Amino acid sequence: MRREIELLREAMGRHGVSLCLVPTADAHESEYPGEYFAARKYLSGFTGSAGTLAVSAGWAGLWTDARYFLQAERELAGSGVTLYRMGEEGVPSLEEELSDRLPEGGVLAFDGTVVNRRLGSSLKDLASGKGGRVLLLDLPGEIWEGRPALPCEPVFSLDLVYAGESRKEKLSRVRARMQEAGGELHVVTALDDIAWLMNLRGNDVPCNPVFLSYLILSMERAWLFVQEGTVPGDIRKELLGDGVELREYGAFFEELPSLCEGKTVMADSRKVNEQAWSCLGVAADIVDLPNPAAVFKAVKNSVEQENLKKAHVKDGIAVTKFLYWLKTQAGKKSVTEGEAASYLEQCRKGQENYLGPSFATIAAYGAHGAIVHYQAEGDGVRLLPEGFFLVDSGGHYLEGTTDVTRTVALGPLTAGQKKHFTAVLKGMLALGDAKFLKGCRGESLDYAAREPLWAMGLDYHHGTGHGVGYLLNVHEGPNAFRWRPPSEGAGTAVFLPGMVTSDEPGLYLAGEYGIRTENLLLCKEAEKNEYGQFLEFEHLTMVPLDLEAVDWEEMDRKDIRRLNRYHAKVRETLSPYLEGEELKWLLEAAREV
Amino acid sequence: MRREIELLREAMGRHGVSLCLVPTADAHESEYPGEYFAARKYLSGFTGSAGTLAVSAGWAGLWTDARYFLQAERELAGSGVTLYRMGEEGVPSLEEELSDRLPEGGVLAFDGTVVNRRLGSSLKDLASGKGGRVLLLDLPGEIWEGRPALPCEPVFSLDLVYAGESRKEKLSRVRARMQEAGGELHVVTALDDIAWLMNLRGNDVPCNPVFLSYLILSMERAWLFVQEGTVPGDIRKELLGDGVELREYGAFFEELPSLCEGKTVMADSRKVNEQAWSCLGVAADIVDLPNPAAVFKAVKNSVEQENLKKAHVKDGIAVTKFLYWLKTQAGKKSVTEGEAASYLEQCRKGQENYLGPSFATIAAYGAHGAIVHYQAEGDGVRLLPEGFFLVDSGGHYLEGTTDVTRTVALGPLTAGQKKHFTAVLKGMLALGDAKFLKGCRGESLDYAAREPLWAMGLDYHHGTGHGVGYLLNVHEGPNAFRWRPPSEGAGTAVFLPGMVTSDEPGLYLAGEYGIRTENLLLCKEAEKNEYGQFLEFEHLTMVPLDLEAVDWEEMDRKDIRRLNRYHAKVRETLSPYLEGEELKWLLEAAREV
Repeated sequence: MRREIELLREAMGRHGVSLCLVPTADAHESEYPGEYFAARKYLSGFTGSAGTLAVSAGWAGLWTDARYFLQAERELAGSGVTLYRMGEEGVPSLEEELSDRLPEGGVLAFDGTVVNRRLGSSLKDLASGKGGRVLLLDLPGEIWEGRPALPCEPVFSLDLVYAGESRKEKLSRVRARMQEAGGELHVVTALDDIAWLMNLRGNDVPCNPVFLSYLILSMERAWLFVQEGTVPGDIRKELLGDGVELREYGAFFEELPSLCEGKTVMADSRKVNEQAWSCLGVAADIVDLPNPAAVFKAVKNSVEQENLKKAHVKDGIAVTKFLYWLKTQAGKKSVTEGEAASYLEQCRKGQENYLGPSFATIAAYGAHGAIVHYQAEGDGVRLLPEGFFLVDSGGHYLEGTTDVTRTVALGPLTAGQKKHFTAVLKGMLALGDAKFLKGCRGESLDYAAREPLWAMGLDYHHGTGHGVGYLLNVHEGPNAFRWRPPSEGAGTAVFLPGMVTSDEPGLYLAGEYGIRTENLLLCKEAEKNEYGQFLEFEHLTMVPLDLEAVDWEEMDRKDIRRLNRYHAKVRETLSPYLEGEELKWLLEAAREV
Repeated sequence: MRREIELLREAMGRHGVSLCLVPTADAHESEYPGEYFAARKYLSGFTGSAGTLAVSAGWAGLWTDARYFLQAERELAGSGVTLYRMGEEGVPSLEEELSDRLPEGGVLAFDGTVVNRRLGSSLKDLASGKGGRVLLLDLPGEIWEGRPALPCEPVFSLDLVYAGESRKEKLSRVRARMQEAGGELHVVTALDDIAWLMNLRGNDVPCNPVFLSYLILSMERAWLFVQEGTVPGDIRKELLGDGVELREYGAFFEELPSLCEGKTVMADSRKVNEQAWSCLGVAADIVDLPNPAAVFKAVKNSVEQENLKKAHVKDGIAVTKFLYWLKTQAGKKSVTEGEAASYLEQCRKGQENYLGPSFATIAAYGAHGAIVHYQAEGDGVRLLPEGFFLVDSGGHYLEGTTDVTRTVALGPLTAGQKKHFTAVLKGMLALGDAKFLKGCRGESLDYAAREPLWAMGLDYHHGTGHGVGYLLNVHEGPNAFRWRPPSEGAGTAVFLPGMVTSDEPGLYLAGEYGIRTENLLLCKEAEKNEYGQFLEFEHLTMVPLDLEAVDWEEMDRKDIRRLNRYHAKVRETLSPYLEGEELKWLLEAAREV
């Protein structure tokens, strides 16, 4: 039995709490919560990136998904925490188990800052269904000795030559939406929405160049809650010039009620945490809508688009240099997964205005490629001169964020491997080549990418693509390629010119190999005629696709045309920046077939 | 100024009505309202199949869509009725105009039986927004001398060997859904839902083998409201045996309130008319849900599926004989569009258990093909030995309903015509060949059919496909192929094995030619594996596609494989039923390429 859980139970006893819920989240629904927010890990000892812990006096359970079953089993051994394998038949859901275990009239506690309103509301219903109630209280915080501090990195300004639209203009667009919706105040808690709106960036969330903050807008004023000392004086002055007053991050929950009292407040219940939402009780009315900034920032303006193309040239050079090295060196000298990832990072670091990786690189050899979110322990395994090596990585540049996956043959492939590689390749190219009428969502187009796999009775258990931020989160909504009807969030958006979406079909054979091929696509206008406005995509990613892995029998004329068209552009774009052996390799790797 | 409108205005004056609305609908939201319901035509003189008339003391307006602009202009000339061209820029919508023209405190009247609840509700909101109210009153009926009688055709029973599921079983499935939804009573007014549920058919709506009726179900009893004399004694007895009591059609509105009083009533506001809905005020609660029968009947059972295949063999023979005649005769002797349609009907009449057309045949030569819902005046034009002839037709058989479109080259085609024909053909075949995971709706698959056209910046202004009933309406929900996100109704359903959907891409060049190629597809299970349950389609329609119109340069290997696979099945299926010249023609027309 873990001491941390015993301590939590003592705290629960002091507060009369029957059940304590500890999710994996920060106060802003960030994708990668930092160490300060790692209460679930601290308490249970399970280090995976996803999981929810629940503790009662005599029981503790942890829910996680299939990616982490083995790891969780190992790490939870002897902890007294029962593992609940999500998605497995017969395994009760978190809600079912909480409902069973909460005694009549019991108290369900959770830290209201790390549970969004949607979940908070359903937990309240669950508790009141048992005649009980919820208590918003950070119990783990009470007992957590040596809790890491909140990250508190300096905030920096994103120049207009990168952002393409001033803070003032952005604020006025959001305020126009507030007016339409009748909102007098707008509470924004999503860090990427705030960063975009303020033309500021930071470094408080791993791989996401954002800063811990809350933002409240009225039609005339704005209050930005940030940690003391993170905003330099010149930026502070600029902000004031645009009517944005700074407040202390920690004072948000105190100031929120007085600001909202009697007002109609616009807020997104999928983003705003329960603690903040509970402060809105004094508001006259709440308009629950997605943040206008979420759609605005998804549509990259013309400056951002031009910058993105530059970022992708730099990223293409880096990844091409890496591929050259991989193809020419990996067979000769011994290289590990980790060393390969390091070399790739080194290639990116050689590029101007590179700020860091946009997510943790996935460098997966052989069977590891079938683990969709694979992260090597230590340096991982050594690459052999056979089979596939899958590398999924991306970078942040002042000119934007990249995300690219290439699956590379390190030596001989089986006929089956080539057939599978080719199906994934055809799907990626077909979606990239789609032309369609304005009004299409991802649901209308996803089939283009899956068709070659579905035709063989194969599939991949993830979306075909996600929106990508501009020097912001590598995963952002609301545009996405998904085949299932979306109810809300990612995939609900109609494609608009300027949106950037990843196109990354894959195939994963557990214990054998994994394949994924990913380009970023920029949506842009094609012809407008009597049928309407046609849209199409432009490949932003400029990195050769491995011709050595292609089964040419499976390539129809149309597939070959698409491949040649892409490679011609890759050659044309990257050639001026490479020389000698690297250039020679590029021209061969991206040759016309 | 039309006398009928003057008479209507007098009646409006008598009842203190400011505005009278006359839609084109029957009491059951049928697609083809009969002559009894043709008040809009009677009043305005406009004979098109779609349109809404609104009349005030000093103004009258008619809204119709682009199909009917020319015809409406001609027919409304001198009537004093203003034409509102729906969809044209600057043309106010019906709602906008009603809202403008209804005086403060005014009365808006309409026949509550021909307006569904959804529309009724929005009209009520519109009226109360002006401090006025609606009046449910059939004003046209008051003044309509010589109004045609309600159709009153005999009802016949659909034997279990055709229906595949007994009335009792169907009722018990619907009642299980009532229980789930907490409905004590279920009011059904959609004629096809009633016909399906009762295993009865009729002939009260043009081309729809249904009978005028209402149905009310409780968990134990059922009341079927039908016109006196339409149900033979043996059927009446059978119905009673299944707990279904007959009531007089005209007594529905009287009996409904007393049956519903204090009960929780399940009803579909998109189907139930406002008059009936207003009777539900005495109910304890209304559960507004699509009729369970609507989804149930969309999934054809195994008996229906086997029958459908037989129906399509018969229909394939008929259409193939017609195509043979067309291809071999039409060039030599003079044939009109109307004569061709008659010959086709004659071919179908030669088939066993043929009951009649499932909709009015579209036989459109040359530029007429570009008019999507073309109906010739008189016999139409003469066919010439060049260009395209488009024939869209279908039949009702005891073994099911068919719907097929073929576009045929009557002689030389231009390169552009062939290119367009081929794009449509490729789309139809690609969708027919789709394999996909269970969970897909039409929105996920529509792209397969449109892709070849969209790639050229072309499109067609209609859905790619609609559900088809079993000896029922040729257009039925909720399955459909649509690319736009559906909000409700057609296209919202996930495809299920047993659903029948048309696959009919097209291309229409106004003043030049039209192309459409349509097969019906039966959804069925493919493999089930770790990825889920795969589904695929089987072509039900067995009619050759015109190889003479194909541009072979545009056909990829995959397209040719699909074409050959389909034609092989057509040859195999139809050969045993044809002989001599017809057989020889079939084998040539559907040859392997």
